[in-house]
Amino acid sequence: MTEIEVQVNKPIIEIASSAGWCFGVERIVEMAEKLLAQRAPDELVYCLGELIHNPQEVERLHARGMVFVKSHDDLPPLAPGTRRKVLIRAHGVAPAVKKILREKGYEIFDGTCPLVTIPHRFAREIVEQGYRLVIMGDREHPEIQGILGELEGLSVRVDVIPGPETEAIKALQLKASDRVGLISQTTHPFEKFAQLIGEVLKHSLEVKAYNTICQATFDRQDAIRELAQRCDLVIVIGGRNSSNTCRLAEIASQYTVCYHIEDASELKGAWLQGKRRIGISAGASTPTRCIEEVRATIEHLSESGRL
Amino acid sequence: MTEIEVQVNKPIIEIASSAGWCFGVERIVEMAEKLLAQRAPDELVYCLGELIHNPQEVERLHARGMVFVKSHDDLPPLAPGTRRKVLIRAHGVAPAVKKILREKGYEIFDGTCPLVTIPHRFAREIVEQGYRLVIMGDREHPEIQGILGELEGLSVRVDVIPGPETEAIKALQLKASDRVGLISQTTHPFEKFAQLIGEVLKHSLEVKAYNTICQATFDRQDAIRELAQRCDLVIVIGGRNSSNTCRLAEIASQYTVCYHIEDASELKGAWLQGKRRIGISAGASTPTRCIEEVRATIEHLSESGRL
Repeated sequence: MTEIEVQVNKPIIEIASSAGWCFGVERIVEMAEKLLAQRAPDELVYCLGELIHNPQEVERLHARGMVFVKSHDDLPPLAPGTRRKVLIRAHGVAPAVKKILREKGYEIFDGTCPLVTIPHRFAREIVEQGYRLVIMGDREHPEIQGILGELEGLSVRVDVIPGPETEAIKALQLKASDRVGLISQTTHPFEKFAQLIGEVLKHSLEVKAYNTICQATFDRQDAIRELAQRCDLVIVIGGRNSSNTCRLAEIASQYTVCYHIEDASELKGAWLQGKRRIGISAGASTPTRCIEEVRATIEHLSESGRL
Repeated sequence: MTEIEVQVNKPIIEIASSAGWCFGVERIVEMAEKLLAQRAPDELVYCLGELIHNPQEVERLHARGMVFVKSHDDLPPLAPGTRRKVLIRAHGVAPAVKKILREKGYEIFDGTCPLVTIPHRFAREIVEQGYRLVIMGDREHPEIQGILGELEGLSVRVDVIPGPETEAIKALQLKASDRVGLISQTTHPFEKFAQLIGEVLKHSLEVKAYNTICQATFDRQDAIRELAQRCDLVIVIGGRNSSNTCRLAEIASQYTVCYHIEDASELKGAWLQGKRRIGISAGASTPTRCIEEVRATIEHLSESGRL
């Protein structure tokens, strides 16, 4: 095999711009590091839910002493005089949860991403102005739970739907006189939201929609769309439970072959066979380290001829 | 040629549901007929602009004594004691025009379609609530002139754009903090409006959009879209200056061969050659008589073997 032939077999690897950690994730990880660095030897620092949707990163923080609990129910009321810190992650929680934690005696460190709280305000505005509220998102996602929590006590109909699909629109039972306000989970694809607005307006009198998709998500989705169109393979890295990572894989799959992995160990040589240009992108919770590992592993697999 | 062969060569002709006159057109033509029926022998009945966008119908009313003028400038102030009637057509006019006519001494009969005046109210609402107003439509169309006239005196930026094309969006110079209110000319395709809303929201903070496309237009466009998909030829009948008719031809052309004609005399035998299923639709200003003539001519052309 001549050197030129090796050169020909080696794929070009491109990392999408805007891949990986966003401002909200960087902020919450810094908060966690700071809390862990400052804690007294016997002090417990809790985190409500996984800090970010990346198992490796959660494992790393756990090893440094952070205690992860699934729900506020797992935290017992504290004896008087005991001090315990709880970190609220970037996705946020409903106001009622914070209230319960405070009543139980915990000290709250709120790492809710500022961009996640913007839709809370818009949701309230929509309801107060007399519009019907429709949210595009996953009902179980903490971000949506946060919005719903914000509206607790108001007796209004709120619909959470996954997207503009006919069944979802039908379920809204729209009337021609309806005035509908729409917001989206911050990490969902803008195109789906735009379609949803059109579908809702088709069956109603007026829509009012807020651009609640965060710029980092927007940029990341734009970049992978552009990248996927000129690659014959795209690898998306991020937790399988990470909403924004799943959306990236969904978008890339529209244009080319795409695999969603959590880390480099999942890469298979067979995937790379015959691929000329490989794109890599990563969700908001994926550390740069992880992206670099994937790039190095792909290079190693192609150089060692294990394709 | 055997009888069976003739049967095979004869195309199936389908008239789109919702083709032809809408409620607004029927209403204005009735008003015109009534004014003409009641007029004194020497009395002049004016109409500002073509009553409807159908040259044959305008010709028919002209023959019965209606005087068509292009603009209010063509109507001189009346001598005291002279009575003259002016009919305002379904498209409406700016309030200033009505004021001028009244000052000149004319008696106004306002046939503005009630559906055309709805966007006037919404445009005002949008501006009063502090949103930037963007109108999808043709700036020169009387309907849009009516809306702009309604806002006269308010020193706000109002954009009229043809649709969601990149150049049109760029011209809006949207900012990420912009709150934009959108309405559409009542006869424009809903799909384009929905796309426009999405494009605007992509570059702004909030959109507020009203469903101002009239139901008859909506139904007519839906029907021709459905019909065009199963025809190998579609004939659209209506004035070449009729906005809603042009939209119908535009939609049909996306799916099949389409010709836009004003009346049966324009039909060409060559168009029908080899066509198995021919669809017919007509704009809101096209009388049923005209549709029936086109159907009969197509049947005649195919039966007489002039294909």
